[in-house]
Amino acid sequence: MTLRALARGLATLLVASTVTASAGMAQSILDRYRAAADSLIDAALADSAAYERLTVLVDTYGHRFSGSESLERAIDWMLDEMRRDGLENVHGEDVMVPHWVRGYESATLVAPRRRELPMLGLGGSVGTPPEGLTAEVLVVRDFEELERRADEARGKIVLFNAPFTGYGRTVRYRVSGAVAAARHGAVASLIRSVTPYSQQTPHTGGMSYSDTVPKIPHAAITVEDAELLQRLQDRGETVVVWLRMEAETLPDVRSRNVVAELRGSERPEEVVVLGGHIDSWDVGQGAMDDAGGVVAAWEAVRLMKELGLRPRRTVRVVAWTNEENGLGGGRAYLETHRDEVDDHVLAIESDAGVFKPEGFGFSGSDEAYAVVREIGRLLERIEAGTVSRGGGGADISPLMRQGVPGMGLSVDGSKYFWYHHTDADTIDKLDPREVGLCVATLAVMAYVAADLEQPLPRAAP
Amino acid sequence: MTLRALARGLATLLVASTVTASAGMAQSILDRYRAAADSLIDAALADSAAYERLTVLVDTYGHRFSGSESLERAIDWMLDEMRRDGLENVHGEDVMVPHWVRGYESATLVAPRRRELPMLGLGGSVGTPPEGLTAEVLVVRDFEELERRADEARGKIVLFNAPFTGYGRTVRYRVSGAVAAARHGAVASLIRSVTPYSQQTPHTGGMSYSDTVPKIPHAAITVEDAELLQRLQDRGETVVVWLRMEAETLPDVRSRNVVAELRGSERPEEVVVLGGHIDSWDVGQGAMDDAGGVVAAWEAVRLMKELGLRPRRTVRVVAWTNEENGLGGGRAYLETHRDEVDDHVLAIESDAGVFKPEGFGFSGSDEAYAVVREIGRLLERIEAGTVSRGGGGADISPLMRQGVPGMGLSVDGSKYFWYHHTDADTIDKLDPREVGLCVATLAVMAYVAADLEQPLPRAAP
Repeated sequence: MTLRALARGLATLLVASTVTASAGMAQSILDRYRAAADSLIDAALADSAAYERLTVLVDTYGHRFSGSESLERAIDWMLDEMRRDGLENVHGEDVMVPHWVRGYESATLVAPRRRELPMLGLGGSVGTPPEGLTAEVLVVRDFEELERRADEARGKIVLFNAPFTGYGRTVRYRVSGAVAAARHGAVASLIRSVTPYSQQTPHTGGMSYSDTVPKIPHAAITVEDAELLQRLQDRGETVVVWLRMEAETLPDVRSRNVVAELRGSERPEEVVVLGGHIDSWDVGQGAMDDAGGVVAAWEAVRLMKELGLRPRRTVRVVAWTNEENGLGGGRAYLETHRDEVDDHVLAIESDAGVFKPEGFGFSGSDEAYAVVREIGRLLERIEAGTVSRGGGGADISPLMRQGVPGMGLSVDGSKYFWYHHTDADTIDKLDPREVGLCVATLAVMAYVAADLEQPLPRAAP
Repeated sequence: MTLRALARGLATLLVASTVTASAGMAQSILDRYRAAADSLIDAALADSAAYERLTVLVDTYGHRFSGSESLERAIDWMLDEMRRDGLENVHGEDVMVPHWVRGYESATLVAPRRRELPMLGLGGSVGTPPEGLTAEVLVVRDFEELERRADEARGKIVLFNAPFTGYGRTVRYRVSGAVAAARHGAVASLIRSVTPYSQQTPHTGGMSYSDTVPKIPHAAITVEDAELLQRLQDRGETVVVWLRMEAETLPDVRSRNVVAELRGSERPEEVVVLGGHIDSWDVGQGAMDDAGGVVAAWEAVRLMKELGLRPRRTVRVVAWTNEENGLGGGRAYLETHRDEVDDHVLAIESDAGVFKPEGFGFSGSDEAYAVVREIGRLLERIEAGTVSRGGGGADISPLMRQGVPGMGLSVDGSKYFWYHHTDADTIDKLDPREVGLCVATLAVMAYVAADLEQPLPRAAP
């Protein structure tokens, strides 16, 4: 433990007793920050600046996959724009990232009736032989059914037709389906796209292999076609698919985390970090996943600067790279800033889409939770003040594992997974006012957390 | 005027006075047909027979475009199944239909940034030269903007980026866009797909040419991309698209209307005809457009037979062919049955999807309207009894122009155009119970209309 961490521990104890013993501090947060919060909210809603910047970003650079030229060009543009905004300490921080390329790919239903199946290979998958592979399909609803029918899987393509019952539960087939199928001798695996709604829309995403079983090609087909293949199998038809994927993993390449700051007026070495990830999958525009999060956080800091609201501590906006297929940016950030970890008083991520914000999910000490809930009350005016227990973000998870309090922006998530990792993740799905509300919500939380007299209390070490 | 028509005119006058003068007839419809209506409704909702038959149809034959083998195989299957059901006078009636083939097609954004644009050529369009054509795009919101910017259109691809403001208003750009663009020297035309909602989903559909201007290729891109091209143009970018379409129109081929009956017990020469169209566009499964309408009408008649409910008049179910790109089936039906037109007491079409039914839209005399509204009251139990003024269907429109009263099944249309003419028009979008409700609604209306003592009064000739 460093001396600073020890001091932080003592401060925690002091603040904790204050928070729990009196409502005075809470009142004082509301009183002290009402005017600043209102000015941030008003500025964020005064125009569509964030939405317009977001539109230029995604229209000009499109999707921004790790290893792509478009990602690096988007990063160059961000750095230039941030300097033009007058943000401080604007720079890129090198990160080595995976370089998976999709290449040509197709899935063709060969029997009982020939038809092209809309599909997307899953990120990191191996390819097929150049001529593809053709095999009978075994459709299963879940891992349990695969285990029961394990002796039918050899030499086949296993299709996991798992209905969407929530992202966390259903994404298991995307992540682990290839390993489970290969364990029983399958030559490839397919999943039903991870979504509650489809218009023949395939969804890509990350996956993993195991060293103990062969690596087999793994791809997503649509909900419609997964259900079709299920029905055909249920009627006793022999279902055959021809799968072609040129996918391959090339050597790692250099990317960058984008960093910009508004330096703190009194304790510049202490940091509230906020942001999202600048990379996306290689489909659509990556507008809600996660250009929107990046631009909203960026705009939050820009507005503080524009309004002359410089907090005691440094507010640092980061556009992490390579969240989607490696988390290289989040891990590199921790390595690059390891000496400053104890000075990170809060990490905030926006990576659930920039729909109508509801508040935050928070992970940290009870004492800190009491404080951020009070800050949240400044957002009740825009119905974005609910701070619930649990939350964070993938890019800030390495920091959070070091004890940094973390929070994720909570939004109306009713349609997020309709577009997630698809060609339909485009700017037109977002609403300028809702993007503005996200800016306001991030700005108020980050500003106040960075300006409090006492840093957010961490859990006792 | 035939003698029969004269007799019908007299009957009309007689019934009209009865209807308007007393509520006795209305009461008697409710009293007399309550038991039969309830048994039809109960039978339609007792199982998922219609939905299951619909599923087999669309899964086995897929889409059923005029000129395709899948359409004729689906027709063969229907004829076999109808005979197996014990329906009467089951037969096909020859129709010559257009044979347009899409072939390979693509639209590529070339500048300012290269990207494939999801697209569908519009039915009947000419193709491009084999190497395609590459031209700058002029984006306009509507015909009026094209007129204002007419001198900018020469040599360009005109994109009509018309927001969806209702099918009737917006479909004009699909139908007439190529003519309007060619009139000003455009080399091709594109439309924003005709839909209120998109997941990068192109929608195909019919279009027309004029003999007075050159025929230029005409295709639909997605809402997302139409908006993207609009924004790029608005920012002063030069937008260039490379369009390739192998589309061509081959000589007409033979198809068939499918006809089956439950012959009337007392006046078999008088007919209530009901049905939908068996053809579809060459995308998706054509499940709601219009296999669902065909199967619901068919099942309605099958249930009458199964329940021993044989009405006084003949109930005839027809699966018209070639509704989508020619209306050949509807026109051929009139020609084939021209001698029986005066004996058609009612024509009912289901072609708005088999979602939750609300009732019917009716076109005919005020006197007939009063009667069908009373029949509708038998459907209040399932909230499908609303009969509103105006309605019919494309396939029955040739009959209606001859004076036959016509009606169209009205359903919850909130999502119909999300799927209309797309790859996403698939069986999974439909609900078995809602399909059953459509069967019940069609069955009650057709049965009672066919069994009334007096035929539905036509407008005085």
